[in-house]
Amino acid sequence: MSRGVSSVITLLTDYGLEDGFVAACHGVIAGIAPQARIIDVGHLVPAGDVRRGAAILAQALPYLPAGVHLAVVDPAVGGNRRPVAVEAGGRVFLGPDNGVLSWAVRAAGGAEAAYEITNKDLFLANVSPTFQGRDLFAPVAAHLCTGRAVADVGPPMPVDRLVTLPAPTCRLRDGAAEGEVLSVDRHGNVQLSITASDLAELGVRLGDTIAVWLGRRQVAVPFRETFTAVPPGDLVAFADSAGLVAMAINAGDAADRLGLPPGAHVRLSPGR
Amino acid sequence: MSRGVSSVITLLTDYGLEDGFVAACHGVIAGIAPQARIIDVGHLVPAGDVRRGAAILAQALPYLPAGVHLAVVDPAVGGNRRPVAVEAGGRVFLGPDNGVLSWAVRAAGGAEAAYEITNKDLFLANVSPTFQGRDLFAPVAAHLCTGRAVADVGPPMPVDRLVTLPAPTCRLRDGAAEGEVLSVDRHGNVQLSITASDLAELGVRLGDTIAVWLGRRQVAVPFRETFTAVPPGDLVAFADSAGLVAMAINAGDAADRLGLPPGAHVRLSPGR
Amino acid sequence: MSRGVSSVITLLTDYGLEDGFVAACHGVIAGIAPQARIIDVGHLVPAGDVRRGAAILAQALPYLPAGVHLAVVDPAVGGNRRPVAVEAGGRVFLGPDNGVLSWAVRAAGGAEAAYEITNKDLFLANVSPTFQGRDLFAPVAAHLCTGRAVADVGPPMPVDRLVTLPAPTCRLRDGAAEGEVLSVDRHGNVQLSITASDLAELGVRLGDTIAVWLGRRQVAVPFRETFTAVPPGDLVAFADSAGLVAMAINAGDAADRLGLPPGAHVRLSPGR
Repeated sequence: MSRGVSSVITLLTDYGLEDGFVAACHGVIAGIAPQARIIDVGHLVPAGDVRRGAAILAQALPYLPAGVHLAVVDPAVGGNRRPVAVEAGGRVFLGPDNGVLSWAVRAAGGAEAAYEITNKDLFLANVSPTFQGRDLFAPVAAHLCTGRAVADVGPPMPVDRLVTLPAPTCRLRDGAAEGEVLSVDRHGNVQLSITASDLAELGVRLGDTIAVWLGRRQVAVPFRETFTAVPPGDLVAFADSAGLVAMAINAGDAADRLGLPPGAHVRLSPGR
Repeated sequence: MSRGVSSVITLLTDYGLEDGFVAACHGVIAGIAPQARIIDVGHLVPAGDVRRGAAILAQALPYLPAGVHLAVVDPAVGGNRRPVAVEAGGRVFLGPDNGVLSWAVRAAGGAEAAYEITNKDLFLANVSPTFQGRDLFAPVAAHLCTGRAVADVGPPMPVDRLVTLPAPTCRLRDGAAEGEVLSVDRHGNVQLSITASDLAELGVRLGDTIAVWLGRRQVAVPFRETFTAVPPGDLVAFADSAGLVAMAINAGDAADRLGLPPGAHVRLSPGR
Repeated sequence: MSRGVSSVITLLTDYGLEDGFVAACHGVIAGIAPQARIIDVGHLVPAGDVRRGAAILAQALPYLPAGVHLAVVDPAVGGNRRPVAVEAGGRVFLGPDNGVLSWAVRAAGGAEAAYEITNKDLFLANVSPTFQGRDLFAPVAAHLCTGRAVADVGPPMPVDRLVTLPAPTCRLRDGAAEGEVLSVDRHGNVQLSITASDLAELGVRLGDTIAVWLGRRQVAVPFRETFTAVPPGDLVAFADSAGLVAMAINAGDAADRLGLPPGAHVRLSPGR
């Protein structure tokens, strides 16, 4: 990131909001780079859920100004996975090399350069093995905002050695799209790993009905522009704000009614 | 809003904090109006609860700097209700025309002008039918902060055509005040739609006892300056920080003990 | 605090995030001191839990820039405890004089001066007896950021009259460390009031086993650098990011498995 392009730092963690952990990271950044603007992407990622963290960051990314994007969802903190910095699409991503960055990096156009973060000059004086977010990642992010070159964080590493999460299952076969539940939001809306384009390839158009297969059970769901196109209480499928197929109940909880937690397998085919 | 009066944007939504939805709105604003200061009024409005959203915004408003006040609690997003901009008391309110703005607009002195938001030049390039907060309202708010005139958002509409929520029930009759539970906070304090002035009209003074009627059941509750005026475990009524009558239990949960959820009917009369 | 040293205000409350209470405080500050930078230390302190609030602030403090540090956890709001301002280590602490500030003040080097906050010129025009955070503390904090002298808040008071919370129990005797559960984080990690140095005094070294006494029950727990040093599902003790002994289960919930809520008594001795 060239100096001056941005002084935005975004933060995504699974630290929760009950303790002062997030505040400590904000404080460290404010101390080193007072001019940096912090955008909290979120801190309620379920503890250690690297895939969920990866999905949240990747989906928010197109709407975040280019900056330093820090993601710390790190069930193996203090273990032997490496802290890394990745350059992609004019952005810098910082986090543990466990895949949490990988979907966002791909959304930004793919990794152009990667560095292992080893330069202790950029860390706090003492690095707790259980709180690298505060002691290592936050200060490194802040130093990058003050104009330090990304290459200063440590030795380069080949981008093809970065840990990459497998993309969520999604394949088209036998005239159906097979995928999984990527997330369930607080409204109970179920986001699938199947894109609206996948449906189009199957010949499904707005106004059609989709056959949703949950194991051996089949449910007919109308495919509409949005969930308010059906009466309250009715199931509906639509292309959500991330371009993915979502299922909702107008004024209701689809995840609960369908019994679909994150990770559940789902198959969609054109209905009658 | 004349240019330079304020660069504050306040945000109220029911998006929750688990996903990156709020961050996407922050990011969009930061990209268009980097100098804007965002104050999060809250994002935990119960999903689709327009009245609760309206109450939170109206109660916080007197303490918020004049600016652009965005409220997106929109169970009918993508349906046919209109996105609107309303000018009132030197402030600009943005949101769906479903009443979520109406109590705050009234608190600001009443609508002076209203516009239907239709100018696509102020939106993101693609507007998801299910995420107008990110794609329509956030960029419009940001453009207003950069000095765009409110009239640029779209055609004016008569202010008397704005959707207005009915005020919470509150009437004085037969020597009693009838109202409803407006909200329950996390301490279990019950806020009523009855004002301290209503009680005064009934002749209730600090130090008196109030008869609280819950259906046919009656509870005698002391009216004091604050909840610490009674011993721990005791019920008390007081004028809360919004000027409304609230009932609390010192170091306890009044909503739970009295069985009073939001919307419940309550009648107060002077006690003995 | 001399003028210009800092314009950071940190906020810790038990107001929760469901209502607009925190936003009202932000708004009041932004209105009086638009240049002030607010860092939210947290607003999810359990209602009225003064000790928990005190612990969160004290643990975050070393990572927060010097500024005005506001903590409102105040089960007796409106009662007869005094609002105070305390100077310590180049910082100013504001809050009710109920001990919520005391551990942070000690962490900052101890109180150098204290003032009772009585100067109504620095308050909002009306002070609700139940919302001093918004009407008294927030405006005072903001005025201090605009350069008002701390001595302007009200008459000085002897620092030894400040209410101080007893430090969490921790004593070494009979070759064991006795302490209590200070907090449980969202991962179920149990933080004790026993420091890593206490363990060192007992002769416990990294790699040793600790005997953890829970009442009459004894559990053998390995003392390691971090929780990922043991296989998933295993108990481990480690020095946490605040220098305190914590117990965790790698990829599990230690508080739940051990039945250890905050306040529970724990005794540690060198294992075999």
